[in-house]
Amino acid sequence: MGFTLEDIARQFGGKVVGDPAHCVGSLAPLDQAGPEQLAFLANPKYLSQVETTRAGAVLINAEDLAKLAPGSSRNFIVTPNPYAYFARIAQAFIDLAAPKRAPGVHASATIDPSAKVAASAVIGPNVTVEAGAVIGENVQIDANVVIGRGTQVGDGAHLYPNVSVYHGCRIGPRVIIHAGAVIGSDGFGFAPDFTGDGDARTGSWVKIPQVGGVSIGSDVEIGANTTIDRGAMADTIIEECVKIDNLVQIGHNCKVGAYTVIAGCAGIAGSTTIGRHCMIGGAVGIAGHVTLVDHVIVTAKSGVSKSLLKPGMYTSAFPAVDHASWNKSAALLRNIDKLRERIKALEAGAGAAAGEKA
Amino acid sequence: MGFTLEDIARQFGGKVVGDPAHCVGSLAPLDQAGPEQLAFLANPKYLSQVETTRAGAVLINAEDLAKLAPGSSRNFIVTPNPYAYFARIAQAFIDLAAPKRAPGVHASATIDPSAKVAASAVIGPNVTVEAGAVIGENVQIDANVVIGRGTQVGDGAHLYPNVSVYHGCRIGPRVIIHAGAVIGSDGFGFAPDFTGDGDARTGSWVKIPQVGGVSIGSDVEIGANTTIDRGAMADTIIEECVKIDNLVQIGHNCKVGAYTVIAGCAGIAGSTTIGRHCMIGGAVGIAGHVTLVDHVIVTAKSGVSKSLLKPGMYTSAFPAVDHASWNKSAALLRNIDKLRERIKALEAGAGAAAGEKA
Amino acid sequence: MGFTLEDIARQFGGKVVGDPAHCVGSLAPLDQAGPEQLAFLANPKYLSQVETTRAGAVLINAEDLAKLAPGSSRNFIVTPNPYAYFARIAQAFIDLAAPKRAPGVHASATIDPSAKVAASAVIGPNVTVEAGAVIGENVQIDANVVIGRGTQVGDGAHLYPNVSVYHGCRIGPRVIIHAGAVIGSDGFGFAPDFTGDGDARTGSWVKIPQVGGVSIGSDVEIGANTTIDRGAMADTIIEECVKIDNLVQIGHNCKVGAYTVIAGCAGIAGSTTIGRHCMIGGAVGIAGHVTLVDHVIVTAKSGVSKSLLKPGMYTSAFPAVDHASWNKSAALLRNIDKLRERIKALEAGAGAAAGEKA
Repeated sequence: MGFTLEDIARQFGGKVVGDPAHCVGSLAPLDQAGPEQLAFLANPKYLSQVETTRAGAVLINAEDLAKLAPGSSRNFIVTPNPYAYFARIAQAFIDLAAPKRAPGVHASATIDPSAKVAASAVIGPNVTVEAGAVIGENVQIDANVVIGRGTQVGDGAHLYPNVSVYHGCRIGPRVIIHAGAVIGSDGFGFAPDFTGDGDARTGSWVKIPQVGGVSIGSDVEIGANTTIDRGAMADTIIEECVKIDNLVQIGHNCKVGAYTVIAGCAGIAGSTTIGRHCMIGGAVGIAGHVTLVDHVIVTAKSGVSKSLLKPGMYTSAFPAVDHASWNKSAALLRNIDKLRERIKALEAGAGAAAGEKA
Repeated sequence: MGFTLEDIARQFGGKVVGDPAHCVGSLAPLDQAGPEQLAFLANPKYLSQVETTRAGAVLINAEDLAKLAPGSSRNFIVTPNPYAYFARIAQAFIDLAAPKRAPGVHASATIDPSAKVAASAVIGPNVTVEAGAVIGENVQIDANVVIGRGTQVGDGAHLYPNVSVYHGCRIGPRVIIHAGAVIGSDGFGFAPDFTGDGDARTGSWVKIPQVGGVSIGSDVEIGANTTIDRGAMADTIIEECVKIDNLVQIGHNCKVGAYTVIAGCAGIAGSTTIGRHCMIGGAVGIAGHVTLVDHVIVTAKSGVSKSLLKPGMYTSAFPAVDHASWNKSAALLRNIDKLRERIKALEAGAGAAAGEKA
Repeated sequence: MGFTLEDIARQFGGKVVGDPAHCVGSLAPLDQAGPEQLAFLANPKYLSQVETTRAGAVLINAEDLAKLAPGSSRNFIVTPNPYAYFARIAQAFIDLAAPKRAPGVHASATIDPSAKVAASAVIGPNVTVEAGAVIGENVQIDANVVIGRGTQVGDGAHLYPNVSVYHGCRIGPRVIIHAGAVIGSDGFGFAPDFTGDGDARTGSWVKIPQVGGVSIGSDVEIGANTTIDRGAMADTIIEECVKIDNLVQIGHNCKVGAYTVIAGCAGIAGSTTIGRHCMIGGAVGIAGHVTLVDHVIVTAKSGVSKSLLKPGMYTSAFPAVDHASWNKSAALLRNIDKLRERIKALEAGAGAAAGEKA
């Protein structure tokens, strides 16, 4: 069960060097692949592995191929971007191993009579689809997912188990939402209605109802247990092809520009705008009501408290060092103003000395 | 479909200026509102928008109203705190748009015969309510929520889809818990039972069963995918009107005082006590076994490792700056003790010079 | 309902001092325990509480027992590690209070005909077990859990409500997974396939299918809403007896060594290897593709960007101080290169002065 190199090149492009009839059935790294597997070379520093791999064929670009010793009997598919090529064909191999589920609604699902579910959609066990929701063609909704009132799910989207999408949200075509993610929960908004200060403070927080929705563009991927809040009045917006990792929090009324990637454990407070083609590192925190322009990179664990209005890379995180050294530096930082005072005193002394000499 | 200004003022207070019979059906920001919408002015810097808004009426305080050009034909409801007023009336407009669900237990729910569910409660599809649990009046429990053995849910609470509440917890009246949140999971406690050091270490971690519960006061709101662990022996306690955002972790045996707000991605380790009226910023980390007194503010991304025994604002986070500048500063910080040595040497030289001069 | 001290010692070891027939029915802290409760002394600083406790019996080690005033009529079980002993017996008391659930599959569960479920397993309401999955002896799977195609769950494991385990994962014996956790979601991998720079950038991210699995060793515990991604080609590996807290993110192809503990809100990026017996503090972030050797400790909120190749404790976090002081230090750090320049200028002046004097 597999594909010939010729088949693959016909469907995905590239040029076969070697035996076009050679058949591969799965993918593997260069150093682990066997004769029925396809590997790829994305980084020339692994070129020597191409000389020794047992892989049935290797995806490679023309430049790297030219560096190999001549006369190899190995098979190749030559393509300008082997890594992206690999990514594209991998889905075909997955479908080979696990045929698609049959369309239809599982008997245990609860679908409101006013919801519209395309006949080609796959609706799993215990799924709930509320009134007025619309589920598009070829959508796959896994077990225990809940789709709120009036929410739309675009063609080809895939929602993994236990995802919750609240009412009035729009999920674009081909969006992937991993298990446990929550889309459209209430934004964190409370009006203070207190009088008095300190121990005499009385009153309460008044919840500000969140009546916006969440709008998610096409080809977005959202990681497991990530949360995206609905807007207060207008929508929270995730543009097309944004990729969001696990356990990310996106506050109400944020807008995330197309092609931006956000790594795990990042948190973005409400009403913040992130441009297109940005890269937000893991565990980054971004304050509310700020703007990051297009092509901004924030490195892992950094904190952004003001707008970043020029493209480029921004940082505020320290790498861990041994505990004792760190504590020494931290103590000196806490007293860095004293160092400055001592420098100032020396400068005054030097000035006085210079004055004496003059 | 809507309310007259007179109706609103009768129910929520405030004084109508303009046409009391004018009818509004929804809410909108000043700059987007139309004649059938109600807007509000919370911040005087937007006063000019009041002059130009197309809103059917504006919530405003008397002070700001006095600043407007006289002779306006606009409609107002005058109230001391327009933002809180807006928050209060918003729920009425939401109910207008989406009528409440009918009480009753969905056919697919699994309710243990020994559980008590009020007749006015709404129990959604695939909900599980275990033995001895008690569900109060007007509670709404959405699809796929699980309520553990003996857990109590107070009147008017709303649990969104896929929430898990373990056994033996108490959820107060009018509590809101957003989708995917977990209440009452085991605290993170293991007794080390190892002998030997380094590579010779043998033994294991022994789990410490967590037999306390979680007690959540009235009017608390808990964000999506937030986790609150049960206590080891006594309860973890969240007092009334605490507001907790998404993806927050609260460890076993913590106590969070009334009216405190905790922003997204914050983590509070076990056995820590946070006072009343505190504000914990996004992604703040607080160590275990410490105490924060009332009225403490910890700014976003800061870390608290010791008790904070005086009210006030505390910080330990840096804002991101351009990557190259940061790296230069970070390298100097790593070697800040060398700067100090150089200052010391200069001081000694200056002293020597002073000595020579003397 | 309870156990005599003699019963306990027979089953769990230790030596009874006092009345072996005394019966205890539950556990409590020294300062709260009554005559029918068992307490423990883990830290000698609480020795005075042993003199005054009303507990029916106290777990204590021989060394601490010897420090007590002679002639006490109190009951003890003497054991070298009272805390670990307490942890071990606590489960017996819990079982006393809450008898185990009866084995069997709930009528509302959806079990694929090709899945194998041991007769001794307890499968709760609305559970989904997909094709080819294998559920071992005495496993407890709570309401709304989803077990993917071909996934194996080892004997004695306990999966709490709303857990999602994707296809092709292996969960070891006696593993505990708390509510909402997600095991086996896709790793965060996208091949860039863009051309052009800045505003002229075109192309897209190509998803790299994740065809590895997750392999979890015996006796692992995984916290609520924690996420562990599946590997890209090979498995993500969590070795035996690893303990992971809530809201932790573990990226694809990570390997976490046996007995390591990871506290809440930590995030570990892809392809990172953590050794055995490590301790990763709360909210720690660890970059991808790095290695931590055995016996590394990373303190809370620190960031690890490079491999840590020597055992020991590492840190990069600052404790919060009052906001104004922090801001002063932070501003000086931002300009620390200017302090260095001033020192250099002074040194040059001192050198010149020394030169003059020479």
